[in-house]
Amino acid sequence: MYDLLSGLSVIEASSFVASPSAGLYCAQMGAEVIRVDQIGGGPDFRRWPVTGNNDSLYWENLNRAKKSVALDLARPEGRELLQALVRATGQVITNFPAKGFMAHDVLAQGRPDLVTVRVMGWADGSPALDYMVNNAVGYPMMTGAGPEPVNHVLPAWDLLSGAYAAFALLAAMRRRVETGAGSEVRVPLSDVAIGTVANLGGIAEVLYERENRPRLGNAVYGLFGRDFVTADGVRTMIVVVTPRQWANLVEALGLTQAIAAVEAERGVSFAKDDGLRFTHRDALFPLFDQAVGARKHADLAAALDAGGVVHSAYRTMLDAANDRTLVADNPIFGTAENPSGFSYPAAGAFATVPQLERQAPCPAPRNGQHSEEVLADRLSLPAGEIARFIDAGIVGVA
Amino acid sequence: MYDLLSGLSVIEASSFVASPSAGLYCAQMGAEVIRVDQIGGGPDFRRWPVTGNNDSLYWENLNRAKKSVALDLARPEGRELLQALVRATGQVITNFPAKGFMAHDVLAQGRPDLVTVRVMGWADGSPALDYMVNNAVGYPMMTGAGPEPVNHVLPAWDLLSGAYAAFALLAAMRRRVETGAGSEVRVPLSDVAIGTVANLGGIAEVLYERENRPRLGNAVYGLFGRDFVTADGVRTMIVVVTPRQWANLVEALGLTQAIAAVEAERGVSFAKDDGLRFTHRDALFPLFDQAVGARKHADLAAALDAGGVVHSAYRTMLDAANDRTLVADNPIFGTAENPSGFSYPAAGAFATVPQLERQAPCPAPRNGQHSEEVLADRLSLPAGEIARFIDAGIVGVA
Repeated sequence: MYDLLSGLSVIEASSFVASPSAGLYCAQMGAEVIRVDQIGGGPDFRRWPVTGNNDSLYWENLNRAKKSVALDLARPEGRELLQALVRATGQVITNFPAKGFMAHDVLAQGRPDLVTVRVMGWADGSPALDYMVNNAVGYPMMTGAGPEPVNHVLPAWDLLSGAYAAFALLAAMRRRVETGAGSEVRVPLSDVAIGTVANLGGIAEVLYERENRPRLGNAVYGLFGRDFVTADGVRTMIVVVTPRQWANLVEALGLTQAIAAVEAERGVSFAKDDGLRFTHRDALFPLFDQAVGARKHADLAAALDAGGVVHSAYRTMLDAANDRTLVADNPIFGTAENPSGFSYPAAGAFATVPQLERQAPCPAPRNGQHSEEVLADRLSLPAGEIARFIDAGIVGVA
Repeated sequence: MYDLLSGLSVIEASSFVASPSAGLYCAQMGAEVIRVDQIGGGPDFRRWPVTGNNDSLYWENLNRAKKSVALDLARPEGRELLQALVRATGQVITNFPAKGFMAHDVLAQGRPDLVTVRVMGWADGSPALDYMVNNAVGYPMMTGAGPEPVNHVLPAWDLLSGAYAAFALLAAMRRRVETGAGSEVRVPLSDVAIGTVANLGGIAEVLYERENRPRLGNAVYGLFGRDFVTADGVRTMIVVVTPRQWANLVEALGLTQAIAAVEAERGVSFAKDDGLRFTHRDALFPLFDQAVGARKHADLAAALDAGGVVHSAYRTMLDAANDRTLVADNPIFGTAENPSGFSYPAAGAFATVPQLERQAPCPAPRNGQHSEEVLADRLSLPAGEIARFIDAGIVGVA
């Protein structure tokens, strides 16, 4: 938690990963993020992983440091309260449909400076999940050794869309400061995915080559990099991106003469050219397989570290969770009283601001925990009217 | 291109994916992003994919709409010019080391309101690439069917760090407006990765279960989702996240009775519970394998679309690049005069702002294309002094 965004309030009406993560990033930077959900929880409220009591460990981490307002969004009164909260606040992050009661034009009635950030599936407004757009842009057909497609487990498009949505919110707010004008910023997963393919040169590559990149397994395209197995059975990734790293790697593995022989035979120099190291990987990889395979991991790691060569052994998520440097001793982690009752390291903002003191991570709210407070503060509703909404099942409280 | 960030100028001293993508997102939203590189190009200037002339299709896409200043950063005069540009501009995105001539404290001398956003590898400042932090947090050991680890091809951590860095820049600038104070915001890939594991519930999950999630291949954890193959050999992903999608999927495939039989046998109801559909996937998947395998893809797709069930066939990146809806007819794409001379669809901002007119994507600069203009405008250097720098090889021009 930092206070970079203190003073900013945002309504978040959303579910799943992308839109909630945008709200999370804002909340971890000190914004007041008011998540509005269906009473009893939205469609992501029980999403796995869950505890034995069916409390979602996913939900309580993606919604840390937010407030929760619970409404019956199936009824007009609940929808009107959400609309009123958006208008009273002035900025909203949502993945609700672009048409209907959460349409920007509807929300902006009486609030022309409203900023709406809308995470979408397909750009035409039809639903899509991370998996759908990932298949559509081709990455599963490039991942793994083939021939079958492999979906990556990380919801990368959701996450990228969420971070981009947080950026887009602040960008649209900056324009509002300059011009006074509100706007809707739509962030479709499908455009984030195909736009990223383009940004990384992928569209240009396949149209230039007129064919797809070959499946490379764990080898890295366009430079020297792959996984290797040490004498004691540790599989580790080694990747070279600078001439110095290459020189130091070759020397550390005692491959100077063998590499020189390949260079002489092929009439090339690997010293300064990532591409050549990739093109001639058929000759290089066997040398490195043998050299890495002759060393114990600890010895290899020490030699590579000394030469500034980046490497990283594969490990499991449980190993990662128990890594002291990465988690227990990492200042981004702290503890919080979680709704599930289960205690574990909780993350704050990814970023570190050396000039500021980092505050401890906050827990996620219980569904409706802040309904009364927010309706009173934001809409100036009298306590009696809020009580009437609660009795009528329009407003839920924790 | 939109003008949400017009009036903002940012120095970008960076390379590879994460830091340049942060600058790209700002440039595509109308900021003036001045990328400062070594004369002749930084370490990423020839990165693959490249054309037959060794022009990087990667570089010219990740650096669209930016200006380029080329300096000899190995010499004190070049470094001083970069420092002066940072001080004159007031905000910088960089992945240069936290210590040295691009340290925040050094840059902030005479410019106490400076905002520095620094993308890093490991949080302690030692170098790491996307592949390193990915291995460290455990995703390759979860991706694919196993037992070997599978690295995803998408540089997801780079991309997420880049988008988050763009968000962090605007957040730190917002605080500066409120308080007048500058700050450095550090975004280490390693903290983005382990923080994301935490945000998605992964840290909690493995510590609660005291074991790792099983390898699931292309099946989705915690809900109903996997790839299936149609009668005509099309492999497609189907994922269910709402009760309505489940009901419509079961009906569309004529599985109502078969599912009811499983429910009766197992004593469960799949109607409203994602988790049960996952837990009992051993019974469900064979039914769907058979039902999908009996249908042609076109028929299946029509039936699923009618029921609002999301699905997506696997395809290659070349197929994606040639998809009219996704690329040629997609308003985020346009054409630009690329440094490589090769013409292809170029992406603008992922986001769409219905209230604003989208401007065409801009090309990437040539190395040093804007050196003279920027040094004159930003540092008020007289033409003669710039010429002296050029003659001395301190400043490069295109």
